[in-house]
Amino acid sequence: MRSRILPVLVFFVFCINPVTADDAPSGETIAKQGIKGGTAPCSGCHGASGEGNAAANFPRLAGLNAQYLAAQINAYKDGERSSPIMKPVADGLSDAEVEAVASYYSGLSAPSAATPIQGADLELGKQLAELGSWQDRELPACNQCHGPQGKGVGAVFPAIDAQPAGYVVEQLKAWRVGQRKTDLDGLMKSVATKLNDKESGAVASYYALLGSDPDKAAKLKASDPASPPEGFASPARSEIPDGDFGASISRGEQIFLGTDTHAVSAPYVGNHQQCADCHLDAGRLADSSPMWAAWVSYPAYRKKNEKVNTFIERIQGCFTYSMNAQGSKRGQVPAADSEPIVDLTSYFYWLATSAPTGDHKMSGRGYPAVTATASGFDPERGRKVYDAHCAVCHGPEGNGTRAHGEMVFPPLWGDGAYNWGAGMHRIDTATAFIQHNMPLGQPNLLSDQESWDVAAFVNSHPRPQDPRYDGNFKETVKRFHSGKYDYYGKIKLPDGKRLGEP
Amino acid sequence: MRSRILPVLVFFVFCINPVTADDAPSGETIAKQGIKGGTAPCSGCHGASGEGNAAANFPRLAGLNAQYLAAQINAYKDGERSSPIMKPVADGLSDAEVEAVASYYSGLSAPSAATPIQGADLELGKQLAELGSWQDRELPACNQCHGPQGKGVGAVFPAIDAQPAGYVVEQLKAWRVGQRKTDLDGLMKSVATKLNDKESGAVASYYALLGSDPDKAAKLKASDPASPPEGFASPARSEIPDGDFGASISRGEQIFLGTDTHAVSAPYVGNHQQCADCHLDAGRLADSSPMWAAWVSYPAYRKKNEKVNTFIERIQGCFTYSMNAQGSKRGQVPAADSEPIVDLTSYFYWLATSAPTGDHKMSGRGYPAVTATASGFDPERGRKVYDAHCAVCHGPEGNGTRAHGEMVFPPLWGDGAYNWGAGMHRIDTATAFIQHNMPLGQPNLLSDQESWDVAAFVNSHPRPQDPRYDGNFKETVKRFHSGKYDYYGKIKLPDGKRLGEP
Repeated sequence: MRSRILPVLVFFVFCINPVTADDAPSGETIAKQGIKGGTAPCSGCHGASGEGNAAANFPRLAGLNAQYLAAQINAYKDGERSSPIMKPVADGLSDAEVEAVASYYSGLSAPSAATPIQGADLELGKQLAELGSWQDRELPACNQCHGPQGKGVGAVFPAIDAQPAGYVVEQLKAWRVGQRKTDLDGLMKSVATKLNDKESGAVASYYALLGSDPDKAAKLKASDPASPPEGFASPARSEIPDGDFGASISRGEQIFLGTDTHAVSAPYVGNHQQCADCHLDAGRLADSSPMWAAWVSYPAYRKKNEKVNTFIERIQGCFTYSMNAQGSKRGQVPAADSEPIVDLTSYFYWLATSAPTGDHKMSGRGYPAVTATASGFDPERGRKVYDAHCAVCHGPEGNGTRAHGEMVFPPLWGDGAYNWGAGMHRIDTATAFIQHNMPLGQPNLLSDQESWDVAAFVNSHPRPQDPRYDGNFKETVKRFHSGKYDYYGKIKLPDGKRLGEP
Repeated sequence: MRSRILPVLVFFVFCINPVTADDAPSGETIAKQGIKGGTAPCSGCHGASGEGNAAANFPRLAGLNAQYLAAQINAYKDGERSSPIMKPVADGLSDAEVEAVASYYSGLSAPSAATPIQGADLELGKQLAELGSWQDRELPACNQCHGPQGKGVGAVFPAIDAQPAGYVVEQLKAWRVGQRKTDLDGLMKSVATKLNDKESGAVASYYALLGSDPDKAAKLKASDPASPPEGFASPARSEIPDGDFGASISRGEQIFLGTDTHAVSAPYVGNHQQCADCHLDAGRLADSSPMWAAWVSYPAYRKKNEKVNTFIERIQGCFTYSMNAQGSKRGQVPAADSEPIVDLTSYFYWLATSAPTGDHKMSGRGYPAVTATASGFDPERGRKVYDAHCAVCHGPEGNGTRAHGEMVFPPLWGDGAYNWGAGMHRIDTATAFIQHNMPLGQPNLLSDQESWDVAAFVNSHPRPQDPRYDGNFKETVKRFHSGKYDYYGKIKLPDGKRLGEP
């Protein structure tokens, strides 16, 4: 414990001279004692341990990302966040003090739980937190941005677990009415607008209680979305049958969501991609290559390998290219009767329940093609789109974002990305995916032109080699990469080699 | 050429003494010259080379099975076949003469073609000849009994190719009205009754012309049955799509029909079974484990191997047990991405077109169970049923019937049969199959009791070892054959071993 005399001195210094980082009071001091004459101690409202105050809807600060906390204080200063209480507090802090107090709270342990809304539907909350409600309203799961169990991702997506539920509900309202508006691409406004009051309370309460019992999440049975989607609908998760087959379906879903970490599939994944990265809503979402539409379309002849492919071979193809199996621990795709293939097959089959066998024209199948624009596509134009809309999640260098041991946003190029044989390396395919699915939960936010350009930008970068490459680069380009939507072998790199050239 | 004086001598001898085999005129003599004073020469009506006479609807005799021909002459004698022309001719022939003339004609080469009905629909004829019309009226393909290309099977099922079409049409009518009635189980009466005049002419003309151009059959495009079946209907064969996928579907059908001879599947078949033996109408027939109902039921958990099986594993299971792959050239089942598996998969998927994914309750699925009877089941009672209804096709020793290089009726026990792991070795499963599907085209001809008994009889015989047998017979019995519908390990054989014991 530091002496109480320090803040007095610091305050004195502050009065006669702008404080410097070296002279600044410690974060702990600001938190516990404030800055005499100017700033109240944070702990008065946010609790002695930074746990928040449920009765007053004051948030917990303990354990939140320091950069995030600092940005919030600055947002109060700048008027980007609005609070009559926080405005004068924030104004009273120098940059160094903001940094110090943010750093202090960031270093505190988060409480295990916070106060929920009474009577909240925790099952509904779990559903929204983990799965969102894609099909009826393009609502991403909270965890998709806020990370596993809502524990936050980087400086942009704060932890929302163990946060007093009343505070979260209040914030959702603030996003909705535009009182809070620092969200990228209006994502939080979009999300908050899609949630009704019951749902806001449910999801906030679910997160508030999440840490109180590590098994709670597992025990809760997810509810199903209230409003049925238009078009085809897979069964609700609550309809997964009991018994061994149901267990296989559930494992398949887990593999689909966490392909590069699940024990049975990870040995075959040579990058940091999940099935669910390209097939949103766990493979359920229309216009996101949903698995129910794929299921009823196989077996089929594929020009890609010039033969009829069973559905199992098609899944193995995803491992070969999108998961870059050649760079995996096993160095090969899982066998047809292996656990990951069987469980994924069970899951896809079940998602397709009642879909008509052989129907190649189900509405929502694949990624609907985006019409070519007069200006074509251009990586340089795409770079600006990427920086504005994509970099926050996928990283400025396209290597994705990892949090709490899991890859939250997938790498788009580099060693962790899909390889040069994956469908997504094609600019037209990536354009179609992006236009209808990116940014998360904001389909069609980008113009067609922006989608084309950003797809070109993403696919103008190095990525793992095409597994079909057999030592002859020129021949590989000719055989597999002659199309106009393909940069492999076409862009000249600074070292004189061409993109994709080993 | 033999002297013309011989018949005169023979006739003389005949008049004073019953002719003996040694003294009998040659078949050729009878055929060409008759028996003076009693019997007109056969060639007068049946043509100089036994080719028949289309204008008069007289059948070809050349190349027909000798036993069959002799039986027909005797049938005219006995009044079982009725013809004012043939009756006196037949009466004039001794047993030895019957044998001689039958043998003579049997040794002549069949003509390559005969006269069709003018304007007959040859495509419709091909359809009925090769596929029958199972779904709407349980009409087996003619080839199923009369053998590949209608060239006849043994003494019971005569060749019907290159036969004047008018004669065949007349015979179909004779079966229908009961004028001809020596058919086993009334099968020909049943078949003839199901055919309308147009169809009779079509199928008779198809066979008449079949040999005129070896490629004709291949060139003809099969028509589709006129009346749509009740319940689920697979697409018509004419709807098989063009291109590589369609080719895969067609190959799959061929493999299904000729599993033990098709180049890609034969190396994995260790007995003489075809997929189509247990799944009639090329896998289309309701209550005959149709493949369309199976397709939408997999993947599924199976108690048999205590795990979730994909459809491909299920097909491999058929190779393991019903096809006894362990005794095949390759000694193992085909791989998941092998030609036979991929093509069979394409075929099954296509048969299931429009069937709802996951529907486990499609009408016609599997073999509907037959209720247990008060008398249980008994192999000795079953032996009589077998001899009366089954032996003619499957052989008195259950080893099936082969003709023209193809297995026409499958072995039911012995080395060529399904092994002790196949579902069909269970008495209840075999009962269900038999009751609804046997004799061919005559479902429910047998009583429940007869079906139980004959299934018990069939499955009380030795067959290839259960592939799950690992050297410990007692353990194998306990683990896999403890059910009450299973004779493996239960029947004591004369050599002191038990059924199935190696």
